[in-house]
Amino acid sequence: MKISTQQRASSRKSSHKGTRYVYRFNQVEEAEKKVGGDWDKVRGLLGGKGANLADMTRLGVPVCPGFTVTTEACNLYLSGNVFPDEVWKQQLAAIADVEEATGKKFTDSANPLLVSCRSGAKFSMPGMMDTVLNIGLNDEVAQAWVKRGGDERFVYDSYRRLVQMFGSVVWDVPDESFESVITERREGAGVRSDAELSARDWIATTKEFKDIIQTQTGKEFPVDPYQQLKLATEAVFRSWRGKRAIDYRKAACIPDDLGTAVTIQTMVFGNMGADCATGVAMSRNASTGEPELEGDFLINAQGEDVVAGIRQTEPLSELKRLMPNAYAEFEAISRQLENHYRNMQDMEFTIEKGKLWLLQTRDGKRTAQAEVRIAVDMVEEGLISKEEAVKRVQPSQVDTFLHPQFDPAARETSQLIATGLNVSPGAAVGVVAFDADTAERWATQEGKDVIMVRPETKPDDVHGMLASKGILTSRGGRTSHAALVARQFGTPAVVGVIELEIDLEARKMQVGDFLIQEGDWISLDGASGEVFLDQLSTEIPDFSNPYLLKILEWADEIRTLQVWTNADYPRDAERARKYGAQGIGLCRTEHMFFESHRLPIVQRMIMTKDKAEQKEAIDSLLPLQREDFEGLFKAMDGLPVVIRLLDPPLHEFLPSYDELIEDLADLKIQLYTLKAPGEKDSIQSQIDEKSTYLERVKALREVNPMLGTRGVRLGILIPELTKMQVRAIFEAACKCAKAGIDVQPEVMIPLTSHVNELKVQQRELESTAQEVMAQEGIEIQYKFGTMIETPRAALTADEMAEYAEFFSFGTNDLTQTVFGISRDDAESGFLIHYLQEGILPENPFTTIDRVGLGKLMEMAVKLGRQDHPDLEIGICGEHGGDPASIALCHQLGLDYVSCSPFRVPIARLAAAHAVLADKHS
Amino acid sequence: MKISTQQRASSRKSSHKGTRYVYRFNQVEEAEKKVGGDWDKVRGLLGGKGANLADMTRLGVPVCPGFTVTTEACNLYLSGNVFPDEVWKQQLAAIADVEEATGKKFTDSANPLLVSCRSGAKFSMPGMMDTVLNIGLNDEVAQAWVKRGGDERFVYDSYRRLVQMFGSVVWDVPDESFESVITERREGAGVRSDAELSARDWIATTKEFKDIIQTQTGKEFPVDPYQQLKLATEAVFRSWRGKRAIDYRKAACIPDDLGTAVTIQTMVFGNMGADCATGVAMSRNASTGEPELEGDFLINAQGEDVVAGIRQTEPLSELKRLMPNAYAEFEAISRQLENHYRNMQDMEFTIEKGKLWLLQTRDGKRTAQAEVRIAVDMVEEGLISKEEAVKRVQPSQVDTFLHPQFDPAARETSQLIATGLNVSPGAAVGVVAFDADTAERWATQEGKDVIMVRPETKPDDVHGMLASKGILTSRGGRTSHAALVARQFGTPAVVGVIELEIDLEARKMQVGDFLIQEGDWISLDGASGEVFLDQLSTEIPDFSNPYLLKILEWADEIRTLQVWTNADYPRDAERARKYGAQGIGLCRTEHMFFESHRLPIVQRMIMTKDKAEQKEAIDSLLPLQREDFEGLFKAMDGLPVVIRLLDPPLHEFLPSYDELIEDLADLKIQLYTLKAPGEKDSIQSQIDEKSTYLERVKALREVNPMLGTRGVRLGILIPELTKMQVRAIFEAACKCAKAGIDVQPEVMIPLTSHVNELKVQQRELESTAQEVMAQEGIEIQYKFGTMIETPRAALTADEMAEYAEFFSFGTNDLTQTVFGISRDDAESGFLIHYLQEGILPENPFTTIDRVGLGKLMEMAVKLGRQDHPDLEIGICGEHGGDPASIALCHQLGLDYVSCSPFRVPIARLAAAHAVLADKHS
Repeated sequence: MKISTQQRASSRKSSHKGTRYVYRFNQVEEAEKKVGGDWDKVRGLLGGKGANLADMTRLGVPVCPGFTVTTEACNLYLSGNVFPDEVWKQQLAAIADVEEATGKKFTDSANPLLVSCRSGAKFSMPGMMDTVLNIGLNDEVAQAWVKRGGDERFVYDSYRRLVQMFGSVVWDVPDESFESVITERREGAGVRSDAELSARDWIATTKEFKDIIQTQTGKEFPVDPYQQLKLATEAVFRSWRGKRAIDYRKAACIPDDLGTAVTIQTMVFGNMGADCATGVAMSRNASTGEPELEGDFLINAQGEDVVAGIRQTEPLSELKRLMPNAYAEFEAISRQLENHYRNMQDMEFTIEKGKLWLLQTRDGKRTAQAEVRIAVDMVEEGLISKEEAVKRVQPSQVDTFLHPQFDPAARETSQLIATGLNVSPGAAVGVVAFDADTAERWATQEGKDVIMVRPETKPDDVHGMLASKGILTSRGGRTSHAALVARQFGTPAVVGVIELEIDLEARKMQVGDFLIQEGDWISLDGASGEVFLDQLSTEIPDFSNPYLLKILEWADEIRTLQVWTNADYPRDAERARKYGAQGIGLCRTEHMFFESHRLPIVQRMIMTKDKAEQKEAIDSLLPLQREDFEGLFKAMDGLPVVIRLLDPPLHEFLPSYDELIEDLADLKIQLYTLKAPGEKDSIQSQIDEKSTYLERVKALREVNPMLGTRGVRLGILIPELTKMQVRAIFEAACKCAKAGIDVQPEVMIPLTSHVNELKVQQRELESTAQEVMAQEGIEIQYKFGTMIETPRAALTADEMAEYAEFFSFGTNDLTQTVFGISRDDAESGFLIHYLQEGILPENPFTTIDRVGLGKLMEMAVKLGRQDHPDLEIGICGEHGGDPASIALCHQLGLDYVSCSPFRVPIARLAAAHAVLADKHS
Repeated sequence: MKISTQQRASSRKSSHKGTRYVYRFNQVEEAEKKVGGDWDKVRGLLGGKGANLADMTRLGVPVCPGFTVTTEACNLYLSGNVFPDEVWKQQLAAIADVEEATGKKFTDSANPLLVSCRSGAKFSMPGMMDTVLNIGLNDEVAQAWVKRGGDERFVYDSYRRLVQMFGSVVWDVPDESFESVITERREGAGVRSDAELSARDWIATTKEFKDIIQTQTGKEFPVDPYQQLKLATEAVFRSWRGKRAIDYRKAACIPDDLGTAVTIQTMVFGNMGADCATGVAMSRNASTGEPELEGDFLINAQGEDVVAGIRQTEPLSELKRLMPNAYAEFEAISRQLENHYRNMQDMEFTIEKGKLWLLQTRDGKRTAQAEVRIAVDMVEEGLISKEEAVKRVQPSQVDTFLHPQFDPAARETSQLIATGLNVSPGAAVGVVAFDADTAERWATQEGKDVIMVRPETKPDDVHGMLASKGILTSRGGRTSHAALVARQFGTPAVVGVIELEIDLEARKMQVGDFLIQEGDWISLDGASGEVFLDQLSTEIPDFSNPYLLKILEWADEIRTLQVWTNADYPRDAERARKYGAQGIGLCRTEHMFFESHRLPIVQRMIMTKDKAEQKEAIDSLLPLQREDFEGLFKAMDGLPVVIRLLDPPLHEFLPSYDELIEDLADLKIQLYTLKAPGEKDSIQSQIDEKSTYLERVKALREVNPMLGTRGVRLGILIPELTKMQVRAIFEAACKCAKAGIDVQPEVMIPLTSHVNELKVQQRELESTAQEVMAQEGIEIQYKFGTMIETPRAALTADEMAEYAEFFSFGTNDLTQTVFGISRDDAESGFLIHYLQEGILPENPFTTIDRVGLGKLMEMAVKLGRQDHPDLEIGICGEHGGDPASIALCHQLGLDYVSCSPFRVPIARLAAAHAVLADKHS
């Protein structure tokens, strides 16, 4: 038995005397000094909010006086569950300073000091922590305020808010208890919104709230402002240990021992008259990134009113007209803060009796379009470096420039019918077609927009998929055939929608209550996985966005990793090149075999037992393949083109076993039930044909096809086939070279696991290549290499490198074999459960498993380059377009990643990010 | 383009003057001096034959004078293709010495010297090299010999042999040319054997042979003995480069640059009268190992006559009576040679006119029974050490003590009908049964010996397999289900007999011309893969052989690696313990699920969608499993028992998809063709039932089940199931412990690939274990651990070792994932081709792939023990019983190997060999 090591909380040092736990907003330098001048550590000590308020104070920006109780104080409290005297002592001193600075006083009903008490951790933890506003109010202060001319409704609304927040935050009274009182009161008054309630209503409500607290907790709402503050501070400390906070930290990987700071700040009010206002503003346009201050405000209002949308806000330009001085001051502050933080700011302000106060500033959220424009503008303004600009744009943001998207308004008003796996982003609208032939016919002959819907797709559905605007399946996972092909061609796709019941025979599908017939319109969003009824309107963003192009240009200057593309057809190659691809890292020759006029030849090759007929079939594929390669070489003139030899098991080219079995059963029943001999003959001949196919399919069928007779194994068993492919490659290359095109073919042998496989196959193929070049009388620069897609190939990479001139990691297959997971099965099975339960931190088919597979790849790179330091190493397959995986590839020293054309720009940026992350780590 | 590095033969140093190329038999010390006293190098210089003849000469054993031309001379010749003068000069000097020693002379027809010229390489290369006898004969010498009283027939028979061997060996005349002359002559004389031909026939034949040489080569047979010798020597040199020799060396991994030596020795003749004899003898009995000289001889005969069996030989004891002096001398020499070589000797001798000559001695071939007895006897005689004795017995020899074998005579006379893969050794005789139920019924109810014949077997065939004497399948490979189960139970099996056409419906099979009905007798030999018609008689060797037990006892003293066993049932555990197992390394709990009274419960558990019903099914398995474990703990009292939790995918417990599809198709046809409504109802209800099964099987079906929902994945999805198993284990353990049995349960979690799987499952199961022990009020020592059977588990073994208290390598699955090879498919597919073509040096499912998988295992051991040096590590599965794999496990520092009971003794010996190999390397 192993006794699990239990970590015991070591008792904390309790010598807290002399420690500074409270910093006024104007003491930021002292905080900096304490932590050695590191701003990140200041944020750790004071929390994000507290640090920024102090920072603005230093900058001379008008900030209401206040102070911050440090995270250290919080941790001290949490270690003993007693409010430390020293902390409270320092808070009292700080309050006295605030009183002095504002001329207001706690407990002075003539000129009362009201403060807010807010949590503020180092990292933003939305919705987790608690706030108490209006501390300092009590019956006496409220009455005096009204007497002094304060608006009675405003004063008691403020008061009831204090009582409500105090009750729920400090003493855990369920907020519903309070809300139900307000609801009743609205009903009693016959009004619909809180804004319509009167001063009398709020006076009564405040009273009722106090009674609720008394009843539920047995305690009186404290009259003493100091008591209010102390209890509120303690409650904020405690909230760090709340369930919501713990869960959030666990999910966001935030350490449990950081603690929260507490910021206490003088209240200001924008709703004290016509010389008051409140508003929010962005220092630049958050949608477009245009460099202009913009925002909304309300005269004589509170911050909440702006956000809540109860009143019609005014654009900020109006403030310029109404309060030119305050506006000018704000505009200057906005510029100052932008310059200081070197980023677009999201600010809150209040004008109390003509005086401007900043309540908050932080980096503003923005669209991808705004992100790239602001980044580029700020470089030109000299605010940030190019590196900084590149770093700010996230690879995922680039994605939005590449796919059509639904109009957000249309999305709101449409009927969502299901959600599946969002495997290939983009918006698609079309009529439902239930098979590839129908999809193709409708699209090409009738010019319809089609969405192909299938239980799952197979390679011989590709023509239909190509013709469709979108793909929807009820089965399959993130890397199912449908998903792979869809991403490859940038076709939006949603897969694995399990609630989809497709009745292929009746040509309809049922999703919950919705019945959809073939030909009906649907819309799907491949980015969110949502499926809608009918046609949603879309908007197509423009990839020619000059700001984006500039960012990518700068990314190219930074990155060292090349970005290649996976492309099987010239049109993909051209697109990828436009997007910046520096080569083709994977051309899958088998995709060409599935084209409708070729498949019968391929099937003939497989079905015949006659060697001569087989040879004849293979030979007739030669000119077709040669043409394919010519197109690719032309498109990639001057760049390398890696062509993978035939990979899938042969049975993939034949009808499926299940289909044949079912067809045969049907035919046999027909045979029994038919009467006319002529009909019987026809049925019998169909049975004979299908039986022949079935026999061959049975012979080729494998228990685990993924680990079966494919890749180089096929090449060794049927050398004529791969020799034909190599002949086609070199005939095409010679022809192009003669026409002045710079061809750089690289022939890739798939699925090797033992060096002898590579040796045997490469020897045979290289002699074919030499033969063709001799015949054509021209020498081409070429390479032979191998996929590294079995663990053994990686483990013996030193041996492989004796023959291979390049490696290309096939991380899809490697992930399957390293984990022992069949992706076809797992992604609609236990993997979902694993991800939900956190057993796997992320889907290894999306992001390379760094700990396991990463270690194996590292070994392979090291072994491969041990005696061949110039060995070209890349990665093809799904992970090549994933930013986290790209970072790993950069760290491992790979030469390139290869991804689908639509991910090329993303990969360019991610590769630059990898360099920058390396620099700063 | 990579220019393949071409090794150029560096031109050899030609300063051969002063080098010694010829050693007389009495110059062995000089040869030893040259190579620094290393006998292995003497063999390298003089070849095996030349070295031993020189060695015997030194020992004073009567050896006819002669000398050896070194392998260096051969290499010198081969580097220039010219006979080096220096070599020939030294040969001439040696001939002169032989002439002096024998008093005979080349070219002296009155007293001619005749010699043989034979090749002799360091390593025996059977059938490859060439020999020329009777060099020195020509017309003149022959005639003079006859005149001197030599037997004319004998002299001319000898002469024609020289001409024939010279023609074919030296000048490449096809031997058929010579043989057809002899055939014609026999026909002309009307006799059937060469022995009946007369002196006149041989005189004429000799003449004709010379004419053939003249016609075919344009050259005259050389009269000069020196010329004969020089050309013969050169021919032997050249034979090193012959195609046969090159092919053999390639296959046997013998380096090409060793060269062959040439031994030239005076001829002696045992056929010169009644005082002459010739014979062969073994210094001990080669069948039983008894320490007595035994052999055969003939008076007045040649060596060939003894071997050819033309004349009835006499037992050696008769020589004692006929030639007591010669016999006594030979007996003494036999003892001397045994003492010298410390091994049983296989000797050839000739007595020429009363004088004994030894022609050859070498270590004798023997049966396994003789091997162990001789080894033990020689230790007791003080000839060899225990270590040497252990080293001499090969693990494969131990195998023959464990399985019944066919009587060799019966095998000779029986009809062989096919040969398949020899997957489980032993002889089996029985009547053919084509399904498991029939096999079981015939065996248990009718007491028949049954051989179960299936296209392939499935887990639910196990009851039939258990009841059968042997298993025969037409499909499947070396590690197919049939092979695995057969080896597990020591049932002889032959699988993958592709020419077997089984017609299950007609209950018959066709093999070539043979038609076998169900119930017919066949016999199969699992050691050779042969299948015979009818009943062959068998003999059962006894494992209680005291010599074998002694060898294994000595092996146990030497080895450091423990040997555990794979056992699912108490009877296997008992057997394995008798064979020396030190624990159970793998108990596969799922095998228990397949038993006929349990399978329905298991199916109910899988089929139901109702959680409560599922729970009820699982609960009713609990007492059954508990009983299983009780039996195992009792059998292994005091030894560890590793129990693996449920591993296979659930669909393995249901009828197969194909079967259901076919049944349903048949039933539907019946439905259409039947007339009576009653019948229809019955068919319809069958259809409904099968359809329900089919639906569930479809839902569970996986594209690659090997990489699917099995092992710990099942445990995590259905924790109730593994918790029930753990409860059963601990309830059984507690009960046994209370009864005074020393229980050491180790619970093994299969197919982990991420540490979190282990963490989650182990936490859940360990709490069940604690719960049971608390209920029972007793503490048991136990371990939790994991299989290492995915590459990722191995790569992250450091993480795994944080939770697992033991590792067990599942090298079957690891081989599949490391290579990316599905064993079910490959062993009847491309793997065969790979092994035939030498693409893979050996079947990785038989012997652990040292280069790839070995490296991964080494990593895992190192990582696992990095922070946990005492981590228990073993291997279970097929490789655990393979000697080469056991050697690897020893080198990697594993604690134990676990193998099927029948391989335990083999593993014990192999583990000792691993220690000895380590010592001497």
